[in-house]
Amino acid sequence: MAKQISDLKLGVLGGGQLGRMLIQEAINYNLTTLILDPDTNAPCKHIANYFECGSITDFDTVYNFGKKADIITIEIEKVNIEALEQLEKEGKQVYPQSRVIRLIQDKGVQKQFFKENNIPTAPFQLVNTREDIRNSSFAFPYMLKQRRDGYDGKGVMKINHAGDIEKAFDAPCLIEELVDFEKEIAVIVARNPKGQMTTFPMVEMEFNPEANLVEFLISPSTYPEAIQLRAETIAKNIASSLNITGLLAVEMFITRNGDILVNELAPRPHNSGHHTIEGNYVSQFEQHLRAIFNLPLGDTRSINNAVMINLLGEKGHEGVAKYQGLEKIMAVEGVYVHLYGKKYTKPFRKMGHITVVDQNREGAIEKAKYIKETLKVIA
Amino acid sequence: MAKQISDLKLGVLGGGQLGRMLIQEAINYNLTTLILDPDTNAPCKHIANYFECGSITDFDTVYNFGKKADIITIEIEKVNIEALEQLEKEGKQVYPQSRVIRLIQDKGVQKQFFKENNIPTAPFQLVNTREDIRNSSFAFPYMLKQRRDGYDGKGVMKINHAGDIEKAFDAPCLIEELVDFEKEIAVIVARNPKGQMTTFPMVEMEFNPEANLVEFLISPSTYPEAIQLRAETIAKNIASSLNITGLLAVEMFITRNGDILVNELAPRPHNSGHHTIEGNYVSQFEQHLRAIFNLPLGDTRSINNAVMINLLGEKGHEGVAKYQGLEKIMAVEGVYVHLYGKKYTKPFRKMGHITVVDQNREGAIEKAKYIKETLKVIA
Repeated sequence: MAKQISDLKLGVLGGGQLGRMLIQEAINYNLTTLILDPDTNAPCKHIANYFECGSITDFDTVYNFGKKADIITIEIEKVNIEALEQLEKEGKQVYPQSRVIRLIQDKGVQKQFFKENNIPTAPFQLVNTREDIRNSSFAFPYMLKQRRDGYDGKGVMKINHAGDIEKAFDAPCLIEELVDFEKEIAVIVARNPKGQMTTFPMVEMEFNPEANLVEFLISPSTYPEAIQLRAETIAKNIASSLNITGLLAVEMFITRNGDILVNELAPRPHNSGHHTIEGNYVSQFEQHLRAIFNLPLGDTRSINNAVMINLLGEKGHEGVAKYQGLEKIMAVEGVYVHLYGKKYTKPFRKMGHITVVDQNREGAIEKAKYIKETLKVIA
Repeated sequence: MAKQISDLKLGVLGGGQLGRMLIQEAINYNLTTLILDPDTNAPCKHIANYFECGSITDFDTVYNFGKKADIITIEIEKVNIEALEQLEKEGKQVYPQSRVIRLIQDKGVQKQFFKENNIPTAPFQLVNTREDIRNSSFAFPYMLKQRRDGYDGKGVMKINHAGDIEKAFDAPCLIEELVDFEKEIAVIVARNPKGQMTTFPMVEMEFNPEANLVEFLISPSTYPEAIQLRAETIAKNIASSLNITGLLAVEMFITRNGDILVNELAPRPHNSGHHTIEGNYVSQFEQHLRAIFNLPLGDTRSINNAVMINLLGEKGHEGVAKYQGLEKIMAVEGVYVHLYGKKYTKPFRKMGHITVVDQNREGAIEKAKYIKETLKVIA
């Protein structure tokens, strides 16, 4: 018999909450998990078979770590690509492929890829310096996004008028037309090396305006089927064009005139798929494993209405985390707690998430609002 | 704020598959888990915060291990009770309580408890030696069960006639009237220190006659509501009488004339509750954590029809385990794989389980039969 999933070692670059939830699923398949993360207290530390504290952006560290694994995946894009390329050359399976990570690491290249592949996205222009921004003829207001290393709302700013340019990033950026959107949505698509593809039902996101982080995520969407189908088709087209193996999260806008524009991509399990653990037949984490191990993809259908609430560190609190109101929210039916094992909280740090499922969509939303008001991460 | 679940250390005696699935849930609550198991390759080894290889039946080992934890639980009954009693005296929380484990460890005491508390059970007689069996006036055929250390079908034999007594156990046993049952069923009840109690819906079990192990488990039952309510009431009465904290699995028979008789108890997560991971809103493992940490109990309702298949080591195979047919069964919708992380297989060893969920009960059963035929653990 050929080598099978339970014989293989999975190396993961990054040991945060995404790696943690991936390991929770990997346990079901006897997978041996190896984690590389620079934080000695990373959320994955105690639950991986092997944990190495080290840089995921350093060539030697990533290369030597990767040599120990059979299949290598990521839970964050900011990793050393050259090491992954070298590992691929030596026959290691790296999923998503290094070329996909390289493309997605750079929001400028990502946008050009959309343009070249007829993927609908907001008009944009690439700039390298603050001077370039000043010389741009782009109409105010617009969004300015750093091409590299932005995440969780960081590396993004709104430029309302010429005066804002003084404090603009002086780095390679993209200028993007402000999208007058009605809703932010996401579709997660999975693709295995055989080319089998599945999408999870489209979800709707509501953002915390202050932190620019997802506050509530509602699954499934109640947008008309035609719109949902369009969003799923866009996601599949991107996954096919990229020829990706693994998960791809596609964040999109629905504009006020009903267009769908792609915002950005993440080639890995994503915050917009956490609800799938309880809300769908297969979770995004198991689907990622099925995809990268070239196994049949699971059933993505929703089981129930699900609302996911990101549990962010409370403003004004920094220090050892305490979860106020946990017992209260656990008394609500259909509530699932996911704490990420982070010892210290700080304002807006992602400390966990809560998913609430309910046969009634409005019921789930009401419960989510109660949870948001009741549960606080303080120090 | 008082100490809360994420601050506490959970010590578990036993590091097998039950501990493993308990840890998978404990991760969601940031629980620090400590495991004691005599097997250096125990299924929990790599996923616990702290793993100690040592005897769970030795006083000093259990006592010293328990000192490191805040709350102590078990995943197998055969543990050193005296150490747990001492830990309780010193203020540690031991759930289930040592007196409950002591009672359940001895099938003779268990039966007497049923009798004293008007719990319906088959007529029985206690014996100490083979000579006692010979002198018994119990009518043939009957069941002979060792009072201690029987599990997974071991320590149980059928005595058909006087000739069988020659090979009978020469140890403290109970003789039990043969129950002419129509179905074996189970109800899992949970109780927290506040006295809150919930039962999972009654399930039906089908046994492998050769191994005397559960082969299929079907949830929920389709017996008339009145019978299900009776079974749940019996389970709750036992939990109340025991004043137990934690889970209690109650295995019962439905006789051909519609009576319910209690067979035996397990004060912990149990094979008859594995389907709850995907089939019910709360899983038995999370419910056990909620109970022992005195948190509100979760919603036990079924989400879907679920059939659980124990994945037993194939006859004639002993050695490093291989999972034949895994990819095939993963192509079936609604199939969940749980491998237990055991390196070596042997005939009838519990190597994992598969749960299949389906909105249609017959559909779930058909899929389960296909899985049973297709998936084999070989060496």
